[in-house]
Parts: sequence; structure tokens; C-alpha cells
Amino acid sequence: MASQIAGVKNTNEDENAHKDLGFCGRVKNKVVEFPMKLKKLGQDDPRRIVHSLKVGLAVLLVSLLYYFDPLYDGLGATAMWAVLTVVVVFEFSVGATLGRGLNRILATFLAGSLGFGVHHLANLSGEKGHPILIGLFVFILAASVTFFRFFPRIKARYDYGLLIFILTFCMISVSGYRDEEILEMAHKRASTILIGAFTAVSVCVFICPVWAGDDLHNSVATNIEKLGSFLEGFGSECFKISCKGGESNKALLKGYCSVLNSKQSEESQVNFARWEPRHGRFRFRHPWKHYLKIGSLTRQCAYRIDTLNGYINSEIQTPLNIHSTKVQELCMKISSESSKALKELALAMKTMTRPTTATAHITKSRIAANSLKSFLKSPGLGGDIHLLDIIPAVTVASLLTDVVAYAEQIEKSIQELASLSHVQFKSAEPKTEQEQTKLHKHGIVHPCAATDGPHHVITIVQPSLKEIENKG
Amino acid sequence: MASQIAGVKNTNEDENAHKDLGFCGRVKNKVVEFPMKLKKLGQDDPRRIVHSLKVGLAVLLVSLLYYFDPLYDGLGATAMWAVLTVVVVFEFSVGATLGRGLNRILATFLAGSLGFGVHHLANLSGEKGHPILIGLFVFILAASVTFFRFFPRIKARYDYGLLIFILTFCMISVSGYRDEEILEMAHKRASTILIGAFTAVSVCVFICPVWAGDDLHNSVATNIEKLGSFLEGFGSECFKISCKGGESNKALLKGYCSVLNSKQSEESQVNFARWEPRHGRFRFRHPWKHYLKIGSLTRQCAYRIDTLNGYINSEIQTPLNIHSTKVQELCMKISSESSKALKELALAMKTMTRPTTATAHITKSRIAANSLKSFLKSPGLGGDIHLLDIIPAVTVASLLTDVVAYAEQIEKSIQELASLSHVQFKSAEPKTEQEQTKLHKHGIVHPCAATDGPHHVITIVQPSLKEIENKG
Repeated sequence: MASQIAGVKNTNEDENAHKDLGFCGRVKNKVVEFPMKLKKLGQDDPRRIVHSLKVGLAVLLVSLLYYFDPLYDGLGATAMWAVLTVVVVFEFSVGATLGRGLNRILATFLAGSLGFGVHHLANLSGEKGHPILIGLFVFILAASVTFFRFFPRIKARYDYGLLIFILTFCMISVSGYRDEEILEMAHKRASTILIGAFTAVSVCVFICPVWAGDDLHNSVATNIEKLGSFLEGFGSECFKISCKGGESNKALLKGYCSVLNSKQSEESQVNFARWEPRHGRFRFRHPWKHYLKIGSLTRQCAYRIDTLNGYINSEIQTPLNIHSTKVQELCMKISSESSKALKELALAMKTMTRPTTATAHITKSRIAANSLKSFLKSPGLGGDIHLLDIIPAVTVASLLTDVVAYAEQIEKSIQELASLSHVQFKSAEPKTEQEQTKLHKHGIVHPCAATDGPHHVITIVQPSLKEIENKG
Repeated sequence: MASQIAGVKNTNEDENAHKDLGFCGRVKNKVVEFPMKLKKLGQDDPRRIVHSLKVGLAVLLVSLLYYFDPLYDGLGATAMWAVLTVVVVFEFSVGATLGRGLNRILATFLAGSLGFGVHHLANLSGEKGHPILIGLFVFILAASVTFFRFFPRIKARYDYGLLIFILTFCMISVSGYRDEEILEMAHKRASTILIGAFTAVSVCVFICPVWAGDDLHNSVATNIEKLGSFLEGFGSECFKISCKGGESNKALLKGYCSVLNSKQSEESQVNFARWEPRHGRFRFRHPWKHYLKIGSLTRQCAYRIDTLNGYINSEIQTPLNIHSTKVQELCMKISSESSKALKELALAMKTMTRPTTATAHITKSRIAANSLKSFLKSPGLGGDIHLLDIIPAVTVASLLTDVVAYAEQIEKSIQELASLSHVQFKSAEPKTEQEQTKLHKHGIVHPCAATDGPHHVITIVQPSLKEIENKG
């Protein structure tokens, strides 16, 4: 809370500093900063530079239609629609470009034929009735299709198609009043749009493609990793234990913030990824929607972590000094073990290997959580300490237990993903014998003899909650 | 946590039920459900129906260009650009329509003149050099403008303009190679786009306008209200106290979920609202960006509430039965008082009146939080109760204290909004004398004698934290 308010204050101070400069100073500042910002933008994601060059190339390619006589003679001035299509359809990822391209082509064909039909129908009603009938159709169609665009599901995948549908329908049916050769017009429009969409999609797919599916997979994994990084630094930061790299530690602790608002970008990436063909490690019908579930659990966990973050910089460290070395130790154990588990899960997801030690880490953090419970239950405690003194520690411990529960859920949903996507999650490199024995001893990894069919589900014998309680 | 997992299970069951129906059954189901969904879509927000009719009307109006000879003679087939502009520019809110319209007009003019200049420059280089030079310009411009579109700030407000800029530039400069009358073409394109944008904006503004600013203002207030509603139901739900309307209570408790992911929609609404002229209660330069701050605090508070929500349906009520009627009572007091405060703040924001009793409620909830602290400090406690038994209660109390802190922050930022937007937050209807005296007694409302100038800041004498501690 305190740190957040400090953040707000800093922004205000920055704004005031800017205001002090006057208009000229601010303009000068912006001009000086601009190239630096440009450079940073490129450095942050070099694919942005490649994408820009690709757009330039696609527009250049399609404008060749104008320069070669044989091409131009067939299409004439409508060649412009090809340029327009490339500019409008070309998006950053393959999925988005394919989605827009297919939407545009399909909508143009459908609306073109409908417009053509309506034009003929209106023609039957004579000179006077024609504009009235066309006007009526245009009004009804524009209104009803606009209304369909409010459907959340339709909006997510076909919004652009519906827009192009209205546009093409109006274009063909209304032009029909003046131009008798609307069949030729419709034909030309359709073929130029095909050329444009084909150029855009080809350049997008064949030159350094950016797959929305890859981005989604990596961003979901990175989000889990960010939570792990927070928990890694949390223990020492919370209990003010000196460690190396104080500043970089702070940065790690802030990383989780971007997870909190990741919903919309994940949803749109899923929609893009669903347009994409088989690529790299992903089949055509990869269970993209399952990423939303993992993402949602990650965000729920991040909300707890945001609450935990409020306890750093709070008064927690002072009253804890006397009595709670044990509490402190256990909290740090829970935090570090769940950090390891989350990081291992993120890595396993990124490399698409089976997480080998994640379950062990989760079990350890659970055991630590249960030990903490037993410790707080012990009758020796509570005699001479004020309850008030350990409220923050208890709250932190309680929140950490929540985090462990979410880490478990995340693990389960990643395993579900592995089983849904069939044989794609491979075993990691075999562990050393010593490590294997250790895991078996904990009852965590069940030596799986043979894989049965295409579903290589990871079979893990999890010690039940009761067993852990007994152990704790 | 448990309820969430139950939710996931339910969805799976629904999906399985759907799968059992077979393809035909599912199609039939969808066809049957479709009209009901359409009806619900309209009932949820009747402005959607009005918007759809408005789009139909605008397209109809602009297609009149085709039907009247005097209009058509001037523009010819380029009249189509007007139809295209209306379809593409017309958005749900006035701000979005204005933003797109202005972007389109400005970008067309700028790119048109630039394209015209480049065409003349290329003409100087002779028959052979012309296409090469034009090609080079098109490539460089398309690539660099595409790169600019990655700037988050530019993307937020001018993304569409940059797209149209590339499009128009390519159109004018490339067409120039074939068509010598590009000045006329540029002129016609510009005027038809002006006509289209003007029609779209006029219909959008003058027939039942939907203001993005209004929507933003109301949605931020509604989000605060949702948190209040959760807290209202939380106490009784958490401690399993029977109350009327169990089901509606559950619905209230779920309302806060939409607040968690409100960031992106708020940001886009702010961007739209900034295009809007003075309307209703808002001036032209209303501090729209300040809503982002209030929204951010609301979300932070919602994260705590999501954590609190995890404790409903948990084992909290059982071990609390013996010792903690006092704890329970105080938790309920904190929760109900901060609920009242948040609801009052939301109402004050919606009606743009000064919140009169919100500070009193916040103070009361603070006092209750401090009483809880003192109670836990008391030496009588801790003797024979297990610490473990009251962990959930302590955690809930601790989280509620956090919520109170956020409620305070939200109150402050609403007051800031009131002072930034000058004379627009009016006093609510005067309270009864009894209520006023009560508030004065608590030292909460300072009888403000006169308002000084345009800044009617609400002057409130808040009892300091120390005073409250002493009182508790």
C-alpha cells in the first residue's frame, strides 16, 4: 500500500517537473527522447522491425500490379483494392493476419453474391421501385449485421468479417443503381481482394513468421515464472534478510504486476492462435482454449501475491524478531519451495517437457505449511506473546498456503494440457539415479513402465493431504 | 478456491452434455437458443438496438448520393468512398466515432498531399526512374509508419489514422503512375471521405448519443459499488449468519469479479472520452485520466476482496464458534461500515454530489479495526485458545483492514476528481439537523462557511490515525 502511494506521488512529481519546463522545453524534450524511445521499442522486441519491413515488402509487391502492363490490363484501377487489402489485413502475428484475410475474403464473396441477388430483385420492381427497395435492404442489413456484432463470441472472431460484409453489400447493391456492369465490378473486387490477401498472408507466413500460438504459450509460461520469481525474492525481502543484488531483487518482485491484467491479451491471442495451421510444436487443433484456464489460475494466484506484496515494506519485520524465527523459517521454506515449483512448471511448459521435480517441491511446501500449522497449534505458544504481534506473520502464512493451493492447481492444469495435446510433452533428460531414488522415496514419481497409446499422461502418485498432515 | 474448481467442473459437465447431443442436436440447440440470446443482448443494453438502427440510417443517408443526379454528377463512382467511410467510422460511442472520423480525415489529407508531392518528385526522374522511386518511397513509408504503430501512446489514439495514412499514400502515389488526373482523384477521395465522416458523426451525435465519458464515469462508480455490495454480504456469508435472500446474496458476492479485469476497457474508454466535446455534466477538458487512478485503486481493492472471497465456503465458521463472537462482531462491523462507505462514494460519484457520510463510515470502520487490534492485544486472550483456531479470522481481519485502507484511498481520489473537475460536484441535499450534529460530534464534517472561487474542494477534518488509536 505504502509503496503504491509512493508510486502515485512519483508520477505526480514527474508531471510537475514536466510542467515546469514550459511548452518549448517539453517539445524539445520529446524530440530528444523520441529516437531513444524508437531504439528501445526495437530492442524490446526485434520482431517489430522485421514486421515493419515485411509490411513494406508486401505493399511493394502488390503495387507491382500497377507497373506491369499485362497485370494492369486485366484489373485496371481496381488494382487499388489489392493494395488496400494488404495494408488492412497485414497484422503482427500469422493468426491475426490469417483471421483478417479469411474474414475479408469470405465476407466479400458472401456479401457480393447477396448484393448481386438483391440488385436483380430490385431490378424487377421497375425504375421507381428500385432505389426504394435497395434502400430498404441496405437499411435492414446494415442494422441487423451491426447488431450481430455485439455478440461476444461473434465479435471475438468474426467482427472484421461482418464489417466487410456490410461494406461490400452496400457497395455492390448501391452501385448497381448507376453501374450496369456490377457483375464485372464484383468479380474484379473479389479477385483483387484475393490477390491482396494472398500476398499479405504469404509474406506473413514465409518470412520470419510470428505465431500467435507460440506467443501465447510463452507468455502463459512466463507469467507463471514471474510468480515464481516473486516468491523467490519474497521471503528474504519480507523478513529483511540481507542478500546479494538488492536492486535486481526489487525488480523481480515487481514483475508479477503485468500478470494481473493479462486476461484480454491472452483471450485475443487464443482467438488468433485458433486460426493458425500446424506449426513448430503445435498441431492444428492444439487445445488453445485450455491456456485460458491456466492463465486464469495464474491470475488468481497473482491476486494473492499482490496482497502479499502489501506486507513487504510494512511493519512486519519488527515485532517478529523475538518469537518467530520458527515461523519465519517455515514461511521462507513455503515461499522458496513454491517458487521452485512454479519456476520448474514454467520451464517445463516452455520446453514442453514433463515437469519432474515440481510435484516434489509442491509437496515440500505443503509439508512446510502443515508444519507451520502444527507449530501454531503447539500449547507452548500463546502463553506470553501478544497475538497482535504475530498477526502479519499469520496472515502471510495463510496467504502463502493459498498460493501453494494455486500452484497445485496450476500444476494440474499444465498436466491436463500435456494430456490434451497428446504426445507433445516429452520426458526431460533422465535424472541421475540418486535423484530418481529420492523422488521415489517421497512417493512422488511413479516409475511408469509403458506408455499406453497416444495419451502419454504423466502418472503421478500424489501423497494425499492426510498423509502429508501425518508427516507434518 | 473450492467454488472456483466447482465452476470449472460445471463447465466441463456442460460441454459433455453438449457432446452427448450429437452434431444435429447441437445445431438444433443453437438455432433454438439464438433468438433468446438476441433478445437478451437487446435487453441487457437497449442502446445496442438504437445503435444498429443508427448505422442503418447513416448508410441509407449516404447512399442517397447515388440516387440524386446533381450529387452523383459531381462525385461519380467515388461516392462509394462515402459509404465505405460511414461503415468503417461509425462506432458505438460518440468519442470512438469522432476519434476514427478525425483520424481518417486528417490522415487522408496529410497522406494525400504527401503522395501528390512524391508523385511530382518521381515524375522529374523520367519514365524509367518513376516506378523505382515511387516503389522506394512506398516501401520506406509503409515500413516506418508501421513501426510507429507499435508506440503504445500512438497506438492508443492514432492507430487508425496511421493505417489510413499508409493506405492513402500508397493509393495516391501508386495510382499516379497510371492515372494522370491524380489531383482530381485525391480531391474526390478527400471530399467523399469528408461527407461520409460528417454523416456518421452527425447521426452518432444528434440521435440518442452514447457518450464514452458517461459510460466511463458510470462504470468506475459501478465498480466501486460492486465492491461495496460484496462487503455488505461478506460478513453474514462468511460467518454463516442466516439472512433473507440467500441466492441474491450469492449473486452480489460474485459481482466484484468483473472489476478484476476492467483495466483495458477503462483505458480505451478514457481514450474515446478524450475526443468528446463538452456534454451533459462534463466539460471539454474533464480530467478523464484521473479515472484511471480511481479504477486502479478499485482493482487493487478488488484483488484483496478476491482473496477474502476464498475464505467464504472455507472452514472458517467452525472453529470460530467458541471464542470469537467479539472478533466476528468486529469483522462484521468493519465489513459493513466499509461497504456503506464504498456505496456512498459510488452514489456520490454517480450523482456528482459531495459524499457526506462516507468519511464517517470509513472512520467507523477504522475504529472497529483498531478495536479488533486492541482486543487481540488483550492479555486475557491467548491463554487457552489454540492460535491455529483463529488464523482464518485473523487473516480475514487483516485483509479487511487492507480493504479499509483502500477505501480511504478511493475516497481521497474521488475528492481529487471533484477538485480537478472544478464546480461540478455539488452538495447533496442538506441532511437533517440531527444527522449533521452527529457528524460534527465525530469531528468529520467541518461546517464550511463559504466556497472560495471555482475550486469547491470538500474540506474535511479527518481525525488523525493517532486519535483513532486512542479512541479504540
